[in-house]
Amino acid sequence: MNLPKFEDIKAAHDRIRPYIHHTPVLSSKSINEIVGAELFFKCENLQKVGAFKFRGACNSVFSLSDEEAKNGVCTHSSGNHAAALALAARMRGIPAYIVMPENAPEIKKIAVAGYGAQITFCTPTLEARESTLKKVAIETGATEIHPYNYFNVICGQGTAAKELIEEIGLLDVVMAPVGGGGLLSGTALSTKALLPGAKVIAAEPAGADDAFRSFYSKTLQPSVSPKTIADGLLTSLGSLTFPIILNEVDQIATVSEEGIVAAMRIIWERMKIIIEPSSAVPLAAILENKVKAKGKKVGIILSGGNVDLGRLPF
Amino acid sequence: MNLPKFEDIKAAHDRIRPYIHHTPVLSSKSINEIVGAELFFKCENLQKVGAFKFRGACNSVFSLSDEEAKNGVCTHSSGNHAAALALAARMRGIPAYIVMPENAPEIKKIAVAGYGAQITFCTPTLEARESTLKKVAIETGATEIHPYNYFNVICGQGTAAKELIEEIGLLDVVMAPVGGGGLLSGTALSTKALLPGAKVIAAEPAGADDAFRSFYSKTLQPSVSPKTIADGLLTSLGSLTFPIILNEVDQIATVSEEGIVAAMRIIWERMKIIIEPSSAVPLAAILENKVKAKGKKVGIILSGGNVDLGRLPF
Repeated sequence: MNLPKFEDIKAAHDRIRPYIHHTPVLSSKSINEIVGAELFFKCENLQKVGAFKFRGACNSVFSLSDEEAKNGVCTHSSGNHAAALALAARMRGIPAYIVMPENAPEIKKIAVAGYGAQITFCTPTLEARESTLKKVAIETGATEIHPYNYFNVICGQGTAAKELIEEIGLLDVVMAPVGGGGLLSGTALSTKALLPGAKVIAAEPAGADDAFRSFYSKTLQPSVSPKTIADGLLTSLGSLTFPIILNEVDQIATVSEEGIVAAMRIIWERMKIIIEPSSAVPLAAILENKVKAKGKKVGIILSGGNVDLGRLPF
Repeated sequence: MNLPKFEDIKAAHDRIRPYIHHTPVLSSKSINEIVGAELFFKCENLQKVGAFKFRGACNSVFSLSDEEAKNGVCTHSSGNHAAALALAARMRGIPAYIVMPENAPEIKKIAVAGYGAQITFCTPTLEARESTLKKVAIETGATEIHPYNYFNVICGQGTAAKELIEEIGLLDVVMAPVGGGGLLSGTALSTKALLPGAKVIAAEPAGADDAFRSFYSKTLQPSVSPKTIADGLLTSLGSLTFPIILNEVDQIATVSEEGIVAAMRIIWERMKIIIEPSSAVPLAAILENKVKAKGKKVGIILSGGNVDLGRLPF
């Protein structure tokens, strides 16, 4: 199996640099005092489309040959990946075909349509999504870009940790949330290449702990009826992301739902930035003492900032 | 009357530079598309204590002679100025005495106490606040630092626009919200000195339009029973801020409450940063077409980000 290496992340970075935001790294004195550590937050909530997903989508779209690109790209997603792929395709001037469940939130439909993607609605089951996508791909000749289990997506996501480390330098720990593992596997590859002595630690909601179970049993476990407010972390690991995580990650910690909301609130109140629940999971792991952070320099990828302001957990 | 000049703002900036955050200037492509202008947001919501108020408080505290400073500083405030003065005093290692109405929100009491200030509670009337403050000042010998009608406070507030212009360069318009006028008068002095051709435009809630009425009648009008969600903009102009505003400001626009909430929501959703309602008032004026912004480069001071997440208007 052809797994990404740090060399591929470097190439991805060169490829996408003109299109992405170089997001800021923020710190908060008061949060540092609370946790007794020095935390550096890489703000992918300030990335285009409001999430790190734009990096992977962008790298995938701009890695296509002109021949492949002209038929466009497709995916099924109701979340940040759909918007990210739509925008990346628009930037390259090629079509994007997005399969969305018909019950997707109105705001997401509008966002994806606003980036010029062609949306095909289907019944809200994984089967319907996959079969509809297959049909769309055959009809259009578009290249399917999987949201995480895709070589060039993983390479794109790894550029966030690369920027973080290039800016801050030495870190003892680098943390990311884990859902399908695209962000985590990219983060792990960049971290271990640039800072061989640093630990890579993932955080996951206890209510969607398939990565935790997979990692410690060394067997890919599916995510079955996950239940968490961190709606970006519901999916299972993939055939590419799992082996990278097994090889490169040092720990996966699980956190409570209350811990996620508390961490999210602390970041909103102290840092004055908007993050989605998934972004709060690593800080929750520190606050719940699942990760040894005391006295350490810890980099944390804040994955995104797309929340429905009408439905906040506060 | 000794009114501040830009020279005084320059001196203030040199004085407070080691203590303040040099806050970022952010832009949003999607907000620019909505308004048809190029907007540059100076993020004082990311300033220490979450508001521009720290600049003025800091300049006031560090302008005192050692002899004056040793007895500390005092003020009455239930808002951002109290926290700002408390932190500035702690940085200089001198006492801060804050008079607060006993019904002030718990969260504000905790914040001010957390910065090490000594709080004296009083009944929640302006009279009680002023008489209690007088008593505290006499007992302690502390210097009273008024939240806006104070030479060194105005100079400190002017450093935000100075940084904005030094970073962005040419702007057609610089906007700030107006309450007591400390931020607006400082902003106007910096803007007219650095960009003589730029317009300075203030925005104010229609439900607290005393600055609007004062400006166009050229007579200081008090704020009587103001009603607005923008709780930083309830106060009247002062004897120092009013003449500066009359001389240096080009326009004051008023906006609706719905406009403030809509502008606040747009900034939260598109920029992923937390601002308080007062910060949204200038963008509301643009969205409500009270300010001619089309095709222009507009700098906007986002005044602060202290909101009660349990009581959001969305």
